[in-house]
Formats: sequence, C-alpha cells, structure tokens
Amino acid sequence: MHWTVYLSGEIHTDWRERMRAGAERRDLAVRFTGPVTDHGASDDCGAAILGSEDKAFWHDRKGAGINAIRTRTLIGRADVVVVRFGTQYKQWNAAFDAGYAAALGKPLVVLHDPELTHALKEVDAAALAVAERPEQIVDVLRYVIEGRLP
Amino acid sequence: MHWTVYLSGEIHTDWRERMRAGAERRDLAVRFTGPVTDHGASDDCGAAILGSEDKAFWHDRKGAGINAIRTRTLIGRADVVVVRFGTQYKQWNAAFDAGYAAALGKPLVVLHDPELTHALKEVDAAALAVAERPEQIVDVLRYVIEGRLP
Amino acid sequence: MHWTVYLSGEIHTDWRERMRAGAERRDLAVRFTGPVTDHGASDDCGAAILGSEDKAFWHDRKGAGINAIRTRTLIGRADVVVVRFGTQYKQWNAAFDAGYAAALGKPLVVLHDPELTHALKEVDAAALAVAERPEQIVDVLRYVIEGRLP
Amino acid sequence: MHWTVYLSGEIHTDWRERMRAGAERRDLAVRFTGPVTDHGASDDCGAAILGSEDKAFWHDRKGAGINAIRTRTLIGRADVVVVRFGTQYKQWNAAFDAGYAAALGKPLVVLHDPELTHALKEVDAAALAVAERPEQIVDVLRYVIEGRLP
Amino acid sequence: MHWTVYLSGEIHTDWRERMRAGAERRDLAVRFTGPVTDHGASDDCGAAILGSEDKAFWHDRKGAGINAIRTRTLIGRADVVVVRFGTQYKQWNAAFDAGYAAALGKPLVVLHDPELTHALKEVDAAALAVAERPEQIVDVLRYVIEGRLP
Amino acid sequence: MHWTVYLSGEIHTDWRERMRAGAERRDLAVRFTGPVTDHGASDDCGAAILGSEDKAFWHDRKGAGINAIRTRTLIGRADVVVVRFGTQYKQWNAAFDAGYAAALGKPLVVLHDPELTHALKEVDAAALAVAERPEQIVDVLRYVIEGRLP
Amino acid sequence: MHWTVYLSGEIHTDWRERMRAGAERRDLAVRFTGPVTDHGASDDCGAAILGSEDKAFWHDRKGAGINAIRTRTLIGRADVVVVRFGTQYKQWNAAFDAGYAAALGKPLVVLHDPELTHALKEVDAAALAVAERPEQIVDVLRYVIEGRLP
Amino acid sequence: MHWTVYLSGEIHTDWRERMRAGAERRDLAVRFTGPVTDHGASDDCGAAILGSEDKAFWHDRKGAGINAIRTRTLIGRADVVVVRFGTQYKQWNAAFDAGYAAALGKPLVVLHDPELTHALKEVDAAALAVAERPEQIVDVLRYVIEGRLP
Repeated sequence: MHWTVYLSGEIHTDWRERMRAGAERRDLAVRFTGPVTDHGASDDCGAAILGSEDKAFWHDRKGAGINAIRTRTLIGRADVVVVRFGTQYKQWNAAFDAGYAAALGKPLVVLHDPELTHALKEVDAAALAVAERPEQIVDVLRYVIEGRLP
Repeated sequence: MHWTVYLSGEIHTDWRERMRAGAERRDLAVRFTGPVTDHGASDDCGAAILGSEDKAFWHDRKGAGINAIRTRTLIGRADVVVVRFGTQYKQWNAAFDAGYAAALGKPLVVLHDPELTHALKEVDAAALAVAERPEQIVDVLRYVIEGRLP
Repeated sequence: MHWTVYLSGEIHTDWRERMRAGAERRDLAVRFTGPVTDHGASDDCGAAILGSEDKAFWHDRKGAGINAIRTRTLIGRADVVVVRFGTQYKQWNAAFDAGYAAALGKPLVVLHDPELTHALKEVDAAALAVAERPEQIVDVLRYVIEGRLP
Repeated sequence: MHWTVYLSGEIHTDWRERMRAGAERRDLAVRFTGPVTDHGASDDCGAAILGSEDKAFWHDRKGAGINAIRTRTLIGRADVVVVRFGTQYKQWNAAFDAGYAAALGKPLVVLHDPELTHALKEVDAAALAVAERPEQIVDVLRYVIEGRLP
Repeated sequence: MHWTVYLSGEIHTDWRERMRAGAERRDLAVRFTGPVTDHGASDDCGAAILGSEDKAFWHDRKGAGINAIRTRTLIGRADVVVVRFGTQYKQWNAAFDAGYAAALGKPLVVLHDPELTHALKEVDAAALAVAERPEQIVDVLRYVIEGRLP
Repeated sequence: MHWTVYLSGEIHTDWRERMRAGAERRDLAVRFTGPVTDHGASDDCGAAILGSEDKAFWHDRKGAGINAIRTRTLIGRADVVVVRFGTQYKQWNAAFDAGYAAALGKPLVVLHDPELTHALKEVDAAALAVAERPEQIVDVLRYVIEGRLP
Repeated sequence: MHWTVYLSGEIHTDWRERMRAGAERRDLAVRFTGPVTDHGASDDCGAAILGSEDKAFWHDRKGAGINAIRTRTLIGRADVVVVRFGTQYKQWNAAFDAGYAAALGKPLVVLHDPELTHALKEVDAAALAVAERPEQIVDVLRYVIEGRLP
Repeated sequence: MHWTVYLSGEIHTDWRERMRAGAERRDLAVRFTGPVTDHGASDDCGAAILGSEDKAFWHDRKGAGINAIRTRTLIGRADVVVVRFGTQYKQWNAAFDAGYAAALGKPLVVLHDPELTHALKEVDAAALAVAERPEQIVDVLRYVIEGRLP
C-alpha cells in the first residue's frame, strides 16, 4: 500500500529534491507527484500547444488551463498534500492549492520559514502539520506510514 | 500511473485514430476509452439484444439505455474527458457528455474547428483546453503527464 | 412548498411564455427560472461589462463565463430541469445543460418535436419525461405537484 | 429569490463599500457576506476569547480557527464568491479562499489590477469572471440576477 | 423549524390518515409528503399526459417516469422517510424507496405487521425504528421533535 | 480493465450460473459479485456468530446486519448492478438493493418475466436495461464492454 | 440570517442554560438545537413507544435508534457543532457526535476542563476552537456572527 | 479482491493480534490497518518531529494532527471499520473514529464487553455488528468475504 503525496508550491529551491532524497534514504512507500516545475514550460504551455495570444491575460489563461488539468487531477488522487511557501514571490497558486485540498478534505501539510507564520495563519490553521524543513515532513510521512519516530 | 482519457463525440472522422497514433508515437502513459463507435451497432443494440420495438422512440430508448451503461461508467472512471464536435450532424450526445463531465468536475478538453466557436461558447467556457487538431491534444496530454513541451 | 423549475434551451419561440401562462392558469406552486433569453445581451455581456476583445473566441469566452454564473447556480437550485430543443440552430448549450443536470441527479424533462427523436436519443434516455408541447409539461408539473390528471 | 455573495480578500481599501453602494443604487436582490474585516479583531480574537498564548504561532492558530468558523460557513452558503487581491501584502488567505471555493464548485469572480495578472493566472483560470473594478462586478451581478446590461 | 416526513408505500389502507390525524391532535411541527396515492392516476399519468402506448411496458414506463419526478424530489427533501408495507401486493416500489432513502442517508422508519418481519429483515435492518401501528410513529416523531414520551 | 457486476435478488433459480456460464463462454472481462446465496447461512449468520436470540425479530436483525456489511460494500464497488425478480416470494431485499443502487447512481439492469412488468414499473423505470433472460444481460455486458452485438 | 448551533454532550450540568442565557443577553442571531436531555426519556423512548424488550441490549438499541433520528438530522442541519465533555461518565456518544460532525465537515467547537486535555487530544485536534467555559463559546459565536470581541 | 479492515480503539490488550491470528488461520483475503499503537510514539510524535512545546495542550495538538493524517486516510480507504472499547480509559478517540466512520457510511463493527452495553448504546446502534470477542469478528469477516459460517 503506497501513499501518494502531492508537492505543491515553491519551484525555485531544492525542497522537492530534499524530500525525495529523504524518502529514498528511508525507503518509504511513498510516491511523490506535483505540478510541472519547469517555470518556462509552465508559463508557455498554452501558447506553445494551442497557439499564441496577443494579450498576456489570455496567454496566461491558456497555460493555466492546461496546468490545471494536471494539478487538479493529481491533487484529487493524492493521499496527502504538502504545500511549500518560500519568502519570495506571491505564490498565490500555492495558497490556492492549499484551499483546494482543504475543501476536498485532503490532509494538508504546510512547509515554510517561521517568519511567514503570521501571513500564513489561515493556511496553517487548515493544516494537520506545519514544518520548517523538508526533512521534518519526511519524518512525518515515515511516522504516518510506518509508525516510527526519527 | 496511467491516465485514462475518455474520447466523446464525432464518430465519422479519424480523430480518435490520430490521437491513438500520436499517443503511441510518444509512448504516453495513457489509456483511451470511449463510446461504441460502430454507428449501426450503437443504434440497434437495444432492439438486437432486448427485443425489437414498433415505435422508433422506444427503439432508440432501449439502445440509448444500454449505451449509457458504457458511457456513464467510463466517463465516471476517466481522468480527462475530450469531446470532439464536427461540422456535420447535431451531436447533442457530445454536448450532453460535456455537460455531464463538467458537473462531475472532470477536466474537459474540447476539439473543434474555429467556425464552430460561437455555437460552442458555453461548452468551451467549461473546458480547460480548446484545440483544433487532435495532435494538439496529444501534446496537451504529453505536457500534463510528462511536463514536456512539443 | 414551491417547486423551482429551470427552463433551458431554445430562445426563439414562445415555449417559455406558454409554460408560464399554463402554470398561471392552473395556479401551480411553481417558480420558473432560466438563462438570460435576450440573445444580444447574452452574447455581449462579457465584453460590455469586462471590456472588449479582438478575438471572437475570447469575446465569447467572457460572455459564456458570466452566463455560467447564472445558469449553473439556477440549475443547482432547481427541483426540475426542462430542456427544449428546437429544429433550428445547434443548441449545444441546451444539450450541455441536460448533461449537467443529469450528472447532478436533477429530474430532467425534455421538450422537442418528434422529428428530433433520433438525434436526441441519448438526451431523452436520461429524462424522466419527454414531451412535444409545453402544455404537456405544465400537465406533468400539475400532476407532480398536485396529483391531478388533466 | 436573493443571491448571497461572499466578498473575500483585501481589507485595506474600500472595494466592499463600493460594491455595497453599487448594489444598493441598483437595488439588486443580493446579500453580501464576508470575513471579519476589522484587522485587529481578526488577529486577536483567539487570544481575547480563549486565552492568550506565549508563542505567536499558537496565538495566530487560535484566531485563525475562530475565523475559519465564520469564513467556511459563509463560503459554503454563498451562491457566488468574489475574491479581491490588492497589490500590497501576501493575501494568502484570499488565494486560499479562492481554492476552497473552486473545490466546492462555487462560481468564482476575481478582482485585481492588471499588473497582478501573471501572478494570479492559476486563480483567474478558475474564475468565471475577472474584473478590475468593483463596479464591474456589480454589473456582473446585475446581469446575472436581472439579465440587464449596464 | 418544521420536520418534513415522507410517507412511502401501501396506498390501500388508512395509515396515512391515521398519521395525519395523530400529528394534528398533538400539534406536531411536521409536514407530510408522499407519492400520488390515487392508484388510477398514478398508473395512467404517463399515457394521459404524454400520449398512449400500445405496449403495457411502455405505458408503465411513461407513468413511472413522471411519478419518479415527484417521489425522488420529495424523498430528497425529506428529513425522515417512513415506509409502510401491507400484507397484500408486491409493493416493490416501497422497498425501492426504502433502499433509495437509505443510500441517501435519510433516517428510515418502517411500518408493518409482525408477520412480515422475516421477509422484511434487510429493510428493517436499515431502519432506525420499526413500528406496527401508525400511532407509534406519531409518538416517535413527537419524541424526536419535542422530546416527550407518550 | 475489468467490469464488476453485482448480481442481486432471487436465489432459488440458476440465473447466476447462467450468467457466469455465458460470460465465460464469451470470455468477458467481467467479475461477478453478489450476496451470500446459501439461504440458511444468510438467515442464521447473526445468531451463529454473535449469539442466539429468543425473538425472531432480533435473530433476523443480527443476520441482516452482517449481510449488509457484504452487500453494501459490494454494491458500492460495482460498476453495474443487476437485480433479478422471480415470481415467488416477496423479494423486498432485491427491490431495496435496486433503490440503493439507483440512489448511488449505479447503472441498473433488471431481470424478470413479463408478467411482473406492472408490479415492477418503478424499479424498471430506474433501470438502463430490462431483460427477460440472463443470456440477454450477458449480451448487454458484452456489448457494453466490447461493443459487439450478439 | 440565523446560525444554527447544535449542543452535544454532557446533560448533567447547566452548560446549555448558560449558553442560552449568554446568547440571549447578547441578542445573538443563533438557534440552539441538541439531543433530548431528559435522561430517563432518552433511555426509555424505544421501549416506551415501540414495545419493551427483555434484553437490556435491545432495549438500548431501540432507544438509541429513535434518538439517532433526532441527533443525526439536527447535526446535519447545524452550522456549528459544540461538544461538551464533563469529568464524569464515559460520554462516548459525545465523542461519537464529534467524529460524526467532523466527517461531515461541520465546524466543531469543544468544551471541557483542562484536566481532560490529554484524553481529548484527538477530538480537540479536529476542532476549530477549544473552550473551558460556556461563556467563551458565546463569545466565539458573537465574534463569528457579528465580528465583535468581548 | 481484498477487504481492508481498519482496527480502531484500545491499544493495551492483544485484540488486534487475536484478529490477525484468526484471519491468518483461516487465510482470509483481508488486510488490517489501524492507528500507530505504540502509545509513547503516538503521544510524542508531534513534538519529536516538529519541535517541543511548553504547554501540554499544544504538545498534544501537534501529535494529534500527525496521527490524524494516518487515521483519517486509512479510515477513508477502509471497507470495514472495527472499533474496540476496553473497560479502562476514556477512549474518546475510539468513539470519535466510530462517529467519523459512520458519517462516511463505512460499515461499522463494535467490539466490547457486555458491561459496556449501556454506555455504548449510541455507538452500537450505528453498527452493523456488535461482538464481545475478536474471534467473532474474524468469523463475521469470513462470512462476509467467503459466505461461510463458523
């Protein structure tokens, strides 16, 4: 019995890699999914596949629609949704995913630096765990799956 | 992890074959499903199996009931629903499937020629992607599954 | 206890008026709702309110989005959904509404001329009643609400 | 038949007042709801009612929990959810509400300046209308409720 | 706050009248709903309104479709569903309603003579109360609504 | 991709065997499930496992509870629910299962002799196919799964 | 717009009265519901209405079934569910209600003395607010409904 | 086709082992899941992984949140939920799980000594089977899966 864990949010640091590495080291029965993390591809997929647009608004809309096919399907399939907030950028899509997952009743885990605590209080309050480092979430998953403490 | 993609709509052109060929060429982790596309069988299945009817209305009803066992089950199982509208025929069943999929929250992709844009505006507005050629949808699926642009 | 009945589909004949008149004559405890039936307003609402678009596709998309706020909400609130198909135009939005209502489990009533029977067989098969004249549907509603035959 | 419209997001400008004024001027059958917009009360309600906390994290958690009783209930009751993003602050709770509403299938309307278009593209793609000024949303509601263009 | 109670099943004895009388005598805040209990009208409504059929099967189908508009809607709105089984007739529609209500999570109350106990064991096992006389169910409703014993 | 088909109802004739034989002969990708069809075991399982009861009512209740663990779970997992009505016995559990499956939105197929048509009209009206012989349902399943007529 | 608040749990202290008094004093737009709090009636309703039982187990079952008609219906209608745990008795029905409400997605508020914190940690973790005195919950409701701090 | 059975409740006796042993002896197609039963780990997981807390309340909250990731996910995946109540401790989490499972529509089996009957009457009334010894539940599962009596 595998656990499917969706990794949403920040794409400019190596937190996904650290989680993958940690899970592998502990040989966890976990399968990670997530959005397309190639920033350029994610921005341009709509125009590249379905045709270019003059207005930035529709260029973005086309891309966001295609990305939503992936993200909503994979969030819907996930057992656990982890959302990472970095200190840079707006990251509204991360908060959107958190709200989306919460409304679906998915167990939510949030990952961010302590300095973001106040700004993220509504998101954190919807979470079953709030961590500061990816390795903590690997430990959470290990405990959840195997019942073992670090 | 496979993606199941239901292909609804037009049965008189080769768009399903083009999608199958495209997906195979790119070795996508995708499984296509769809209605019975043998027009005669689809029309007559009710009478052929459950007994003939004098009135066309009940002849059609019997067949449509049996077809619905297949179509609703497969749409319910699908990760993505693609609906193709051609320029011929009424194709109300295609639009019905689109509405059905939308209400279930299935990601919807619509395929049609630009000349049908106005007539299909409500259907398109419920879609996450609108394409003109089957190959574009193969590219959409490839991006969605593998994160790669064409 | 009122019944809310959503009237979807054809906007170029007087079927809605005939239903309203019939329901009034019999003093039915029914409230009719439906889409905006002013064709021009329905087409242009997006551009008129949110700003014009160069491309017809996005012009239509903007309008269809706003119309969907109304139609999906009112279908969601309806006790019964009636869908009328005329012999003109594609009317894919009518079939879309029928599929949408069916997936929500709403009792569906379809209204069309006998000549459309074959083209509408999948839609009819999802309906609890298929009528040819609006007055018949008034009689259906009267029976459903009051238990009285015509 | 009233429409209930939840107004989420930015609390430091007068957009809610402008919407209320616009709706009143047009005598719309609309009832607005929303979060507690008194910033201080919203931050401190947990500690003020349930007892103070030493750590900011738990101070925030207590308050966010109580606020969630209100926001989730009112979003759940709403016919339409409007989310406003300003150019200041993180506003992750606004994006969270948008995702929450989207997953519940609530019609979503987003309000923001054009300069935020790219950052909000996933949120906008989930919306049925995107506006720049509150008065446009009043016009959207008027059209949706009464079928009249501005 | 009223309670809506749907009364399904047997139409050839006076159990509905006895429940109505009992509820009135105790002035219960209850509203009873139910199927059309005029046997002839219930059988013929389809043909009478939508046109006659040569085959009994389709004659019945048309009527059953129209009756389902009423019964499914009212069961869906009910707070409590009471199903009465008499010793005569098959009454499969009563058992169908019981299963339908159970799957919707509606509190189910069953009313029948002790001699039917074995034949109804699956239905009874899905019920929250099983009574032998209508007056007992009035007492159940009185207790449920007002907290008072007989 | 297998289809799971639940076979509910009559346990005193060989219709299940005929369906199994037919499906095997045609090598259908189908898996049949159903209730425990050993009449004695089905009646006594509660008392035999959980302890005997003096009253027949509670004896039946205990057994029906345990049987419900099986039947509700398997109906919930089924793609298609077939319900067979014989001419003997009350078979209220069969009609209960039909209503239960209908409320879950499961495609329903009903099997019975023509003489039961009138008594079963509400059940038939909820079905997507009504057959008289098990072999017809095998043909329905074959068409639904493989698209081939008999 | 009223808020409906279900008060579950302990029936041997005056916490419900204190909440009612507090809400009245502040004139809150709130309607309280709850189980039957007459202990004797609650225990005996089954036997008193549906007939006595020799075994205590079935005596209890009959009563619990009738009480469930009330409690599940009112919890299902509630906007907020408050559960009170006292220091006496097992109160498993209170914890059952809390789990039931949590699974339905109802905002949960828990009321108990600090000494019960450890024993109630799973229940508290599912709550949006945990209070020690009924007056605090009145304050929570006042803030939630009116946005005002104590 | 395996059955997944979640074992909730008491962690200080060997009932889970007895169930596992019984199921193995009979070679049942069953997979047991459950909470982490290491009492210390279960209490401390939050602090051990996410950082210690000064207040017992938040120490407990952190741990309960992480445990909920496991328990809610596994209950959601279970075909059957078994809840065991012992005569010691409050075991409110067991009753919470029972209510949670009931609201999800999961078949519920309860295991306890006869002396707890009265205190557990609401929980028992929501169950499809109530047993006194783990071996009885193994027999229930065997009957449910294989149709065989002990």
